[in-house]
Amino acid sequence: MPVTVLRIGHRPERDQRVTTHVGLTARAFGAEGMLLAAQDKGVVASIRDVADRFGGSFTVEDKVSWRACIRDWKENGGTVVHLTMYGLPLPEVIPQVRAADRLLVVVGAEKVPGEVFGLADFNVSVTSQPHSEIAGLAVFLDRLFDGREFDLPFPGGRVRIVPTASGKRMEDL
Amino acid sequence: MPVTVLRIGHRPERDQRVTTHVGLTARAFGAEGMLLAAQDKGVVASIRDVADRFGGSFTVEDKVSWRACIRDWKENGGTVVHLTMYGLPLPEVIPQVRAADRLLVVVGAEKVPGEVFGLADFNVSVTSQPHSEIAGLAVFLDRLFDGREFDLPFPGGRVRIVPTASGKRMEDL
Repeated sequence: MPVTVLRIGHRPERDQRVTTHVGLTARAFGAEGMLLAAQDKGVVASIRDVADRFGGSFTVEDKVSWRACIRDWKENGGTVVHLTMYGLPLPEVIPQVRAADRLLVVVGAEKVPGEVFGLADFNVSVTSQPHSEIAGLAVFLDRLFDGREFDLPFPGGRVRIVPTASGKRMEDL
Repeated sequence: MPVTVLRIGHRPERDQRVTTHVGLTARAFGAEGMLLAAQDKGVVASIRDVADRFGGSFTVEDKVSWRACIRDWKENGGTVVHLTMYGLPLPEVIPQVRAADRLLVVVGAEKVPGEVFGLADFNVSVTSQPHSEIAGLAVFLDRLFDGREFDLPFPGGRVRIVPTASGKRMEDL
């Protein structure tokens, strides 16, 4: 199932590293792209640099309007999941989420507008404890895709890591 | 199995939010505590504040020496896992890791000293793609504990979130 991540609530100074981690996690766990509802060239450049070197077709775009993005997604038959510690537990809702044709996964920073809870088709929690939107996204995608991140191909990269018991092995392709 | 997270490579300005997310993820996913190989009162205070409000017995301590910490852990019969994109895939090594009595999970920032790869009993990757130590830790603990984070009790908290389909419900206890 095609999945796109929509990152909202990003504050350019404070959230740069966390939002970069959100994008890289989305890519590594099989999402097709990230839309960023803010302007941040540094985040976009960091993620594109990884995608260029390590391959695959992940896309990232900033300066989107989150309201327009969610509305268009739903008008085109897509399903919107909002990850939040206030939502229903992932194990309960994952069977329904899996029935979607395509998913927009909304990942907020600390403060999320109340409107998002109403617009989402599913508000989903990865535990009801405060932790990290990066952790939530990773576990959500791991469960959604049944762990396929461990076998994903990333064609077209310039480098590749060779798993080893101890040390670092990276090959040029 | 008791699990403690050792956070290394933390740079006080740049990594404050990411390291706070590492600690909160460790707590939410069932680790007993986090040791931080750096001094950062802000990180410690943020995590303790969540633990006070939401309950449980998670501990956090900064200013530890990572070398002493890893050495002591091993001398006392503990097992050391280092999460790194260069390591062996989690699904391959998890059966061996589960045989440990107690685990120290080492989570690095961008640059990890080569020595850590040699000291660890297991270098484990959550995909061989660059993403996020927070995502890696979350999926590692989710798999290690078979998803028990969704049912963990956190006794003694002052507040509790009530999962709902839409909106935010928090109860005072």
